[in-house]
Amino acid sequence: MRVLGIDPGLAITGYGLVDGEGDRLESVAYGVVRTPAHTPITERLVMLYDELRCIAERYAPQQAAVEEIFFATNARTAISVSQARGVALLALAQARLPIAEYTPLEVKQATTGYGQADKAQMQEMVRLLLGLPDVPKPDDAADALAVAICHHSHSRFAGLG
Amino acid sequence: MRVLGIDPGLAITGYGLVDGEGDRLESVAYGVVRTPAHTPITERLVMLYDELRCIAERYAPQQAAVEEIFFATNARTAISVSQARGVALLALAQARLPIAEYTPLEVKQATTGYGQADKAQMQEMVRLLLGLPDVPKPDDAADALAVAICHHSHSRFAGLG
Repeated sequence: MRVLGIDPGLAITGYGLVDGEGDRLESVAYGVVRTPAHTPITERLVMLYDELRCIAERYAPQQAAVEEIFFATNARTAISVSQARGVALLALAQARLPIAEYTPLEVKQATTGYGQADKAQMQEMVRLLLGLPDVPKPDDAADALAVAICHHSHSRFAGLG
Repeated sequence: MRVLGIDPGLAITGYGLVDGEGDRLESVAYGVVRTPAHTPITERLVMLYDELRCIAERYAPQQAAVEEIFFATNARTAISVSQARGVALLALAQARLPIAEYTPLEVKQATTGYGQADKAQMQEMVRLLLGLPDVPKPDDAADALAVAICHHSHSRFAGLG
C-alpha cells in the first residue's frame, strides 16, 4: 500500500510517500510545497491545491493521511494553517483518496513508541524506519513522512496493511 | 457590478448576490449552503466547493467578497470555519473572481454606519438598503448580503463602482 502523508501549512506544506509491505517501509518521494509570502492568500491556496493534485497524480498513492492542527500557537496562525488544511483535504478528496487524520501525538507515538520524544528523535526514527542515509529535510517533509508511517502502523493494527 | 458576498462556515455558508448601479443596490439571490453533520469533513468540504462553483456559474458575479474570521469563539470552531473558508476562497479564485476580504467590523460599519450595531439592526439595514419586504433569512444569508453591500460601498469610495 502506498500512503501520501501531509503536514499542512500555508507557507510550507510537507508531503511524503511511503510504500509498505508487511513490516517493510520504503520512502518513495518526499518534499515540500512552498507558496510565496506577500502574495494574496487566494493565489497561494490555488498553488497549494494545484501542487497537491499533481503529486497525487504523479505518485498514485492508494491512501492519504493528514496531520491534525495543534492549536497551542496563536489564533492567526491557526486560521492560516486551517485554511490551507481545508484546501489540502479538498485536493486529496477530489483525487479520490481515502483520508485518515492523526493528531501530532498519534504521529509521535507511531514513530517513536511514546509521546514524549522530541523533534530530533522523531526525525531520527523516521530515517531509521525508512532506511534512509540522512534525516529527510526540511522538517515539514520529515513530518509528512512520519504521518504516512503513522497511517501504515494504524492500518497494520487494523488488519488493512 | 454584481458582487457575490460569502459568510463562510462548515455547517452553513451564507451567500448573497447584490447588483449595484450608482447608489442603487439590488438583491439578485441569496441563500445558504448546508453540509450535513456526522459526515466526514472531507465530504463536507467537497460539497461546499461544488455548491460555490455552481453558484458562481449560475449567477456570474464580477467580484466576490468574503468575511474574515472573527476568532473570539473557541479554537475548535476557528479551525473548522477556517478550513471551510480556505475551500471557499479556492472555489471563488478558480472561478476567476477577484476576491476582497472584510472584517465583521468593516461589514457592520458599511451597513449601519457605526460598529456598535447589533445583529438585528444590521439585518434591518440590509433589508432597507436592498428594498426587500422582509429581513433575509437565515442569518447567514443576511450576513452574506451585508458583505456584498460592504464591498459595493468600498468599491464606490475607491471609484470602482
